[in-house]
Amino acid sequence: MKFPDWLTYIQQRTETALQAVLPAANLAPDRLHEAMRYAVLGGGKRVRALLVHGAGGSFTHARPEQLDRAACAVELIHAYSLIHDDLPCMDDDKLRRGKPTVHVEYDEATALLAGDALQTLAFQALAEYSVSATVAGQIETIQLLAQAAGSHGMAGGQAIDIASAGQELTREELEFMHVRKTGALIRAAVLIGSRAGEGVNDDRRRRLDLYAKRVGLLYQVVDDILDAASDTATLGKTAGKDASRGKPTYVSLLGLPEARRFAEELLAEAHDALAPLGERADRLRELADFIAHRAS
Amino acid sequence: MKFPDWLTYIQQRTETALQAVLPAANLAPDRLHEAMRYAVLGGGKRVRALLVHGAGGSFTHARPEQLDRAACAVELIHAYSLIHDDLPCMDDDKLRRGKPTVHVEYDEATALLAGDALQTLAFQALAEYSVSATVAGQIETIQLLAQAAGSHGMAGGQAIDIASAGQELTREELEFMHVRKTGALIRAAVLIGSRAGEGVNDDRRRRLDLYAKRVGLLYQVVDDILDAASDTATLGKTAGKDASRGKPTYVSLLGLPEARRFAEELLAEAHDALAPLGERADRLRELADFIAHRAS
Repeated sequence: MKFPDWLTYIQQRTETALQAVLPAANLAPDRLHEAMRYAVLGGGKRVRALLVHGAGGSFTHARPEQLDRAACAVELIHAYSLIHDDLPCMDDDKLRRGKPTVHVEYDEATALLAGDALQTLAFQALAEYSVSATVAGQIETIQLLAQAAGSHGMAGGQAIDIASAGQELTREELEFMHVRKTGALIRAAVLIGSRAGEGVNDDRRRRLDLYAKRVGLLYQVVDDILDAASDTATLGKTAGKDASRGKPTYVSLLGLPEARRFAEELLAEAHDALAPLGERADRLRELADFIAHRAS
Repeated sequence: MKFPDWLTYIQQRTETALQAVLPAANLAPDRLHEAMRYAVLGGGKRVRALLVHGAGGSFTHARPEQLDRAACAVELIHAYSLIHDDLPCMDDDKLRRGKPTVHVEYDEATALLAGDALQTLAFQALAEYSVSATVAGQIETIQLLAQAAGSHGMAGGQAIDIASAGQELTREELEFMHVRKTGALIRAAVLIGSRAGEGVNDDRRRRLDLYAKRVGLLYQVVDDILDAASDTATLGKTAGKDASRGKPTYVSLLGLPEARRFAEELLAEAHDALAPLGERADRLRELADFIAHRAS
């Protein structure tokens, strides 16, 4: 399958799997369940799901259904973080994936609780379905997701992000923040995929982890670039908001040309990490290119 | 050990275990970690931890350390729910356990993220430590906690609670809400305790579950009574707030004397459920009485 077809194929599988994992909108409490579905379904590039499948498919021979469940869990954590990140006490955003944000479409309390319940659902999905060849692998998957989402990962990165508005950060501090805010969950997607089926040997695991770290940081550097260099219609979310809020980014720190150079450097390192892994790593290579050169 | 001594003993064990599970306050991001510790440590009756130990200790011969970890996870979910419930877009409360609420002591964004990270930490604690005699039991424990916390449990109950302010609910609707908002996590504490060690047979499990459901609803009925009949200093949180917000409660629906009668009825049913289980269930009996007759 060519990459664009595979992309669409996995995005559609993921949508179907998320439909099934999410509570039906007509179950009480309806409004909460509607808001959860509104936030998760029908949007997003599903980069994290793609990475789960990209890392899981060729390396571990996991069943695609197992990868779907794992991919859902990672996407649910991502969706919950977007809802909370958009709330008035955080970034106060009105637009997400080209639609009104959850608290605008519903209300703040519903948005808060929908995010909370989506986080729970992510862990429930990992615990209730087979997402790995062994029960020990399933437990390890839950550990990986929790480490990536918690205060040493995504939530910690968000806290630093909020506190850093109007501050100047050093390059090390900026990387510390970005690696957590976005990098941790992207990295977890690759690691979770690589745990799904048959054991991946230690050398491959190290290489996949190195790839995952580079791609995780790359994702956020490109996000910084797009926020500065793109428009709201293309992004589906408000453009230029980092600068208007005085948020430190790779663009504010390095300037646009140097930030672009850094992104290419990270992309090259991601490819280097995969070099000895042969054709099996082709999807991951294509995904790295996709993340680096995406338009939104 | 007499009940009051056991109570103090388990409360202290739980505090120590929570201290160890929570990230150190001097780890970055410090402010987030401080807020997480502020919200969790040094307060609360630890009813859910007591129920984990009460159900786990005598029935399953689980190691106390396993019960500590499971108890921590349930208490972390409870603590996260209190932080979010106190936020301005929810109940907008200023006082909790006799201290300023987290968003008052810190700020709203930090409170939101501290709650988020505490939920993650609960699942991380269950996945990273042995909380059951088998790995399958560990997975089942994670399922139980997720079912209790999610949109069909606690988060769903909160959503109904928020939506019902100023509404009149039928007795069935009120029970539907209370069983989720408070009952689900209390019930999970008992079930998680009973999964910790050696297998509990089906009949015992059914009886423990019946006990757990009664005690879960009892907890919230007594909460309604205390909110109406007690004062802020005794409660450590603002008294009379249900009435001032027009929230439907067992007191608003039945009146105080009838709500008290209902609480005694639930207590009697909890005792009935345990009747054939002999001395082993004594801690659970004492805990039911404690929940029914507590002052805050």
